[in-house]
Amino acid sequence: MKLEISASLNYRLSEPVDLMLQIEAAVGHGQQVVESSLDLGNPEFVSRVPAVDGLCEPIWLRASGTLRAEYRAAVVVDRPAVDFRTLPEVALHRLPSAVVPYLNESRYCPSNKFHAFVERRFGEHEGGSKIARMRDWIESRFTYLPGTSDADTGALDSFVERRGVCRDYAHVMIALARAAHIPARMASVYALGVDPQDFHAIVEVYLDGGWYMVDATGMARPEGTARICVGRDAADVAFLTAYRAIELVEQRVSVKELVDA
Amino acid sequence: MKLEISASLNYRLSEPVDLMLQIEAAVGHGQQVVESSLDLGNPEFVSRVPAVDGLCEPIWLRASGTLRAEYRAAVVVDRPAVDFRTLPEVALHRLPSAVVPYLNESRYCPSNKFHAFVERRFGEHEGGSKIARMRDWIESRFTYLPGTSDADTGALDSFVERRGVCRDYAHVMIALARAAHIPARMASVYALGVDPQDFHAIVEVYLDGGWYMVDATGMARPEGTARICVGRDAADVAFLTAYRAIELVEQRVSVKELVDA
Amino acid sequence: MKLEISASLNYRLSEPVDLMLQIEAAVGHGQQVVESSLDLGNPEFVSRVPAVDGLCEPIWLRASGTLRAEYRAAVVVDRPAVDFRTLPEVALHRLPSAVVPYLNESRYCPSNKFHAFVERRFGEHEGGSKIARMRDWIESRFTYLPGTSDADTGALDSFVERRGVCRDYAHVMIALARAAHIPARMASVYALGVDPQDFHAIVEVYLDGGWYMVDATGMARPEGTARICVGRDAADVAFLTAYRAIELVEQRVSVKELVDA
Amino acid sequence: MKLEISASLNYRLSEPVDLMLQIEAAVGHGQQVVESSLDLGNPEFVSRVPAVDGLCEPIWLRASGTLRAEYRAAVVVDRPAVDFRTLPEVALHRLPSAVVPYLNESRYCPSNKFHAFVERRFGEHEGGSKIARMRDWIESRFTYLPGTSDADTGALDSFVERRGVCRDYAHVMIALARAAHIPARMASVYALGVDPQDFHAIVEVYLDGGWYMVDATGMARPEGTARICVGRDAADVAFLTAYRAIELVEQRVSVKELVDA
Repeated sequence: MKLEISASLNYRLSEPVDLMLQIEAAVGHGQQVVESSLDLGNPEFVSRVPAVDGLCEPIWLRASGTLRAEYRAAVVVDRPAVDFRTLPEVALHRLPSAVVPYLNESRYCPSNKFHAFVERRFGEHEGGSKIARMRDWIESRFTYLPGTSDADTGALDSFVERRGVCRDYAHVMIALARAAHIPARMASVYALGVDPQDFHAIVEVYLDGGWYMVDATGMARPEGTARICVGRDAADVAFLTAYRAIELVEQRVSVKELVDA
Repeated sequence: MKLEISASLNYRLSEPVDLMLQIEAAVGHGQQVVESSLDLGNPEFVSRVPAVDGLCEPIWLRASGTLRAEYRAAVVVDRPAVDFRTLPEVALHRLPSAVVPYLNESRYCPSNKFHAFVERRFGEHEGGSKIARMRDWIESRFTYLPGTSDADTGALDSFVERRGVCRDYAHVMIALARAAHIPARMASVYALGVDPQDFHAIVEVYLDGGWYMVDATGMARPEGTARICVGRDAADVAFLTAYRAIELVEQRVSVKELVDA
Repeated sequence: MKLEISASLNYRLSEPVDLMLQIEAAVGHGQQVVESSLDLGNPEFVSRVPAVDGLCEPIWLRASGTLRAEYRAAVVVDRPAVDFRTLPEVALHRLPSAVVPYLNESRYCPSNKFHAFVERRFGEHEGGSKIARMRDWIESRFTYLPGTSDADTGALDSFVERRGVCRDYAHVMIALARAAHIPARMASVYALGVDPQDFHAIVEVYLDGGWYMVDATGMARPEGTARICVGRDAADVAFLTAYRAIELVEQRVSVKELVDA
Repeated sequence: MKLEISASLNYRLSEPVDLMLQIEAAVGHGQQVVESSLDLGNPEFVSRVPAVDGLCEPIWLRASGTLRAEYRAAVVVDRPAVDFRTLPEVALHRLPSAVVPYLNESRYCPSNKFHAFVERRFGEHEGGSKIARMRDWIESRFTYLPGTSDADTGALDSFVERRGVCRDYAHVMIALARAAHIPARMASVYALGVDPQDFHAIVEVYLDGGWYMVDATGMARPEGTARICVGRDAADVAFLTAYRAIELVEQRVSVKELVDA
């Protein structure tokens, strides 16, 4: 599937500020960026950071007055259609070392607290089947409700409150997966079907030797999803991190299917 | 300085359990492991995980009945004596990508909450001088008090309660450093001067292009400290992670200076 | 039913300390204290505080060196056997003002977070029937596990962790009831059936114009329970509050049925 | 001093909802309500709840479609000008029982965590002098910043973040006072000097046998302050509690000094 992606950011900066931008679709890993442009105006400074995880390439900016970023891309998503529900989990001692940190608790996912619940509720299932049941459980019990969570809301709160936005759904999904000793991470993505259109956050779980996309909100499907970057949770994958207070003026994201004539 | 290190772990396992062990002194990075032995008895399974960070090499075990681990090593610490207090900080956009995650909030270090305090209290200082003042501030205001914190205690609690053990001191130090946009991570170590002797946790801050050790408890000095492994906070560097409940029988750590005849 | 109650407290005090003791069975409200004795040794100071809620009469002590308290009582419990499951709830605007505070969030019971869960899970039921289903839900999903919670553990943690002791069960029960707009409070009690024997905490809910006992642990029954005092949650009903650090030496509680010859 | 007070509330209700309103200046206790009117439109139901604390008289409403409340009053504040800084604290065992609950931890004020800080920072002072130093400490270190806290923000967060609005200042003040074993409660008030004008929250501390007003924000003075009601913290004194989600349309508060011709 071919996606036409655009993102437009406009922020007011009352003083010079360092910013980190993570808004470009990643190269490889089941997606090809066939065209892209990024216009950042004239910041004082721009540099790309070579990506550690082989996915994202964050951009450091230093700007004052205004931050404007206009990103456009055409991305062909060609990751194989795999039904993760049938995949086995990987024995702990066979996990690659790069995967192990995604078993650990993180800022928004204090997963150890969920052991008893996960054991009791999903303990009879395994691997992809277990992940699928966790996902369905979250989607059926939570209400997607913008404005009810903030930068301090973690999986513990969301699990109790049964509501939130994509990042909250993802945090609970990650916490449940890790509590079952299945590595899980957050991916920031552009995806078809996200309503209202915006940057989106989903989960990737490690099964059968690879990472598989899971969206607890049910809005995105792997074939219509372009990864931006991955990390332990929302603390790692923000599309924009400002190292001083800044003010949103406007922000727009659009993801459409491109049907070649 | 040459350190004679021993660690002895004895746990009761009521059922077969996967365990991850991180108790060996790391190779390189200012320390040479001149001799070492690790006796793990006869677990069902043992495998080493090649280290991602170039420091630690965790061991996966699967055991039942009992876990016994006897580790002995002689380690020559030869890291150069550097006074980090005079070192400059690195501009954000010059941070290597592998260092950037250590700016982010983590499980026990919600550093964004500390911005205003850090700006007000330490804002006029920079780099190593700022770190030194943060360290001194913590040491002078906190009381080292075993038994007052647990696996759920984070930097927010410790900052208010003004007490804890090495990991709590380290979490507050990390939170303050990151709030000042200086990368900081936790290192698990063996160190001379830790009283009572035990596994110890300190902080490493990124200044002037390298990682420097800081111990907010004031007990350990870099020249008497052997790194085991590093991570974002205590969620990453546990010496023993059990993927089922286990029961401590006995545990002993000893670190002595070896004076060659 | 007639209960023979004894409680024995022995604490070491390293300096003079103010203490508040709430260990005497309350007078009235469905129970008669037919005999009682309280031996407090020779503290520097003792005074009783006339009870606000008409139930408990806390004792202030000032002591040094040692606190010893020996309480013995025979209590006839004669509260009418009422099946609260059939009782209606009281319309909010008909709640007496003394009852209204028990709708509010408290230290350990941030009940507003539970609205969506309660509405979804128990929304089709009402009054006593709703309370009964909440109680059964907790008992069937939680594991009674001493040592897994502490003075900082609230209903949010316990709801996620699905384990704890009587006070944790009670906090979750209170949070669920208040989230359904049914007033709920904690009662400290002596009760038959508590294993191991100790001070016990249960919940009282306000239905049909009165307070009714509910024990989410399933251990205590109203006819075998003698109230000590009530409050919003564990922050109010501690059997012993010390205004300096003190050290437990020994503590024993015994509750038996007295069968008159 | 004579105050001219008006408050106007306008909320949209998408379904019939129970509401509790606490917006009328209290009668007595250092203030006389010389004139007042309250127009609630035509709700389905209105009832006043006789006040427990002798201060506030909450109103229960049941309304649908719209909630409009127009309150106007002239209040003469005649509480004696007392400098609380010179007042002694009351020995714990001499506290009236109605005052004791204000020593306990509450929803937003987990005061026990602040013991070490309070002992170290303010331990050499006593009574009103200690309270004054706590107040000054908060005012000088915190920034009044609307929009940075919400209904979930407690004293722990605010103490670390060093910012917030009146309720956050009050929660930290209450936590510090209780940590020093001085009873403290929250009062909702109308006050001259609050900028921007709004419902305001201050603290009352129990010293020398009475309750004294303390405003950590420094905006309100006792002689220009009319109490509405008091409680353990913000969980008790909300001017409007809705037992279903409602939507703010408009809200205005005005407090002026009335100078009689």
